[in-house]
Amino acid sequence: MMAESLFPVVSFEALRARLACLPAFDEKAADAARARQMQLTKPPGSLGRLEEVALFMAGWRSVACPRIGKAQGLVFAGNHGVCAKGVNPYPQEVTVQMVENFKAGGAAINQLCRASGADLAVVALELERPTGDFTETEAMSEAEVLAAMAKGAEAVDPAADILLLGEMGIGNSTVAAALAMALFGGAATDWAGPGTGSDKAGMSRKILAVETGVARHRAVREDGLAVLAAFGGREQAAICGAILAARIYRIPVLLDGFICTAAAAVLEKLGVGALAHCLAGHVSAEPGHGRLLDALGKTPLLALGMRLGEGSGAAVALGVVRAALEAHNGMSTFAEAGVSDA
Amino acid sequence: MMAESLFPVVSFEALRARLACLPAFDEKAADAARARQMQLTKPPGSLGRLEEVALFMAGWRSVACPRIGKAQGLVFAGNHGVCAKGVNPYPQEVTVQMVENFKAGGAAINQLCRASGADLAVVALELERPTGDFTETEAMSEAEVLAAMAKGAEAVDPAADILLLGEMGIGNSTVAAALAMALFGGAATDWAGPGTGSDKAGMSRKILAVETGVARHRAVREDGLAVLAAFGGREQAAICGAILAARIYRIPVLLDGFICTAAAAVLEKLGVGALAHCLAGHVSAEPGHGRLLDALGKTPLLALGMRLGEGSGAAVALGVVRAALEAHNGMSTFAEAGVSDA
Repeated sequence: MMAESLFPVVSFEALRARLACLPAFDEKAADAARARQMQLTKPPGSLGRLEEVALFMAGWRSVACPRIGKAQGLVFAGNHGVCAKGVNPYPQEVTVQMVENFKAGGAAINQLCRASGADLAVVALELERPTGDFTETEAMSEAEVLAAMAKGAEAVDPAADILLLGEMGIGNSTVAAALAMALFGGAATDWAGPGTGSDKAGMSRKILAVETGVARHRAVREDGLAVLAAFGGREQAAICGAILAARIYRIPVLLDGFICTAAAAVLEKLGVGALAHCLAGHVSAEPGHGRLLDALGKTPLLALGMRLGEGSGAAVALGVVRAALEAHNGMSTFAEAGVSDA
Repeated sequence: MMAESLFPVVSFEALRARLACLPAFDEKAADAARARQMQLTKPPGSLGRLEEVALFMAGWRSVACPRIGKAQGLVFAGNHGVCAKGVNPYPQEVTVQMVENFKAGGAAINQLCRASGADLAVVALELERPTGDFTETEAMSEAEVLAAMAKGAEAVDPAADILLLGEMGIGNSTVAAALAMALFGGAATDWAGPGTGSDKAGMSRKILAVETGVARHRAVREDGLAVLAAFGGREQAAICGAILAARIYRIPVLLDGFICTAAAAVLEKLGVGALAHCLAGHVSAEPGHGRLLDALGKTPLLALGMRLGEGSGAAVALGVVRAALEAHNGMSTFAEAGVSDA
């Protein structure tokens, strides 16, 4: 099955129809991996989440001893109309400047991908054309959402063994807060945090924008794809597309922080288990992220107080996944090592 | 200053005298690292603990941009007289068998060190001669403690940039619980956990052994070195020696789980800040570990539910330290990248 089986697609309705038969976790491969773990020279369960991660990888890669030959990191970048409301302390040109920084290899994500052995690609999505200001209008049309999703899906390398997703977009923590509130309810203050470093006045503008936007678009609450169109942005839609393409290829995904997770949450609301192949790489310092992960039933691998985005937390988490697989694949069994079992 | 300035030494009193002038954190190097961080293309503080780790490494390595050329992993192994009290479900021969497994490359720690780029060495300490059963006698004499500490110190490679410490020794979670209770008080049930997997009857024997031992040796409570002699074991003493040698060489240390941390706690009680150069690699699933880290004022880098020992948690945490330094050393500044600051 190719990602082309999902995109291009002409409408949300047609996309929903195509999501009815997503690939499932391979219980047989996971069982074989579990049987192997029980024979390895360690007390059962003593590697904790490393063992769970190895089983997760086995089930999605459909093999008892999964290996990471190629890890792909993807950063999607977009610009947002809601920046007109003064929700972010950085000027919007920074999105373009940071994309250049990614391409030149100077950003945090470049170093973190190198450290964990991931190939990084950056996809800039019409940065010169910000989405609509969601406090006043829809951020994107249905066609624009689908086009950005298709871009995200196209960017996924079918040969990757794991995919790390990140984003860059001045103002997009405001978008994420609006998405989360529209999808899961609660108050704007539950979801809107300091982001890249808003001061008190900036926070007030951000909260007001989220409240105004969610009130304006209250008709589409909890309908994932309509919510995505209402609030944006293109990088969020691309993340959704990449997650779906990865699922088609049975490539497990490491989610990053609040913004990446809020984008993914759109898919959760489709009710087809579309995030089953996704791990939460970390929980960020952004207050809404832990709440969002709880809502999605995801336990993060790391909690390092990071709040940068770009895929930075996912890239660090890749090291944990690699460690899990090295132990799973490389350890001797009790019989091989001549070690007495309990 | 060489580790030879600490060992050999003829008495605890003489060792204490030599610990009066341990190398201190280099605030100037850390300040230079902090000044660099403020110019990197990210919101200040947005890499969370990665930034703290980079400053920690800078201060201990005395350089603004610290690098890990060589990472050394050391696993110390010992046997324990208290095993006569049935405190562990595995037979005591497993310590020897696991040392062979380490040497053959088949254990978890071998894979995890390879995954994180650490060179592993294993030091077996008189496995054929278990320490005394601490419920009935002192585990070790002063001379035996000092000899094992010297072995630990000798094993440290002065050329290492970071040191990972681990241990193996059937029964040593009982020893660790006794050390922790003697040093920090509380009840045996606060410190004795399931370890490698004790059942209910095994747990009762373990708790009774800890209570009996701590009551027997109550005279030496809170005197670190005397507590170490009372409860053992050799691998715990070697860990203490390695930590001190690393300090002399200004090599930062990644502590592992409950047993490694309980050994290190002996040094904390000397009141000279002997653990200032040590990071808690992780908090294990062993219930006493979190309590012990709290008592030491250490916040773990990872919480992955691991409970294997061997240095396994420290080895996974090395990946986080490497990520921290890659970001710190490799990122462009705002000026270099032409990115607008807030």
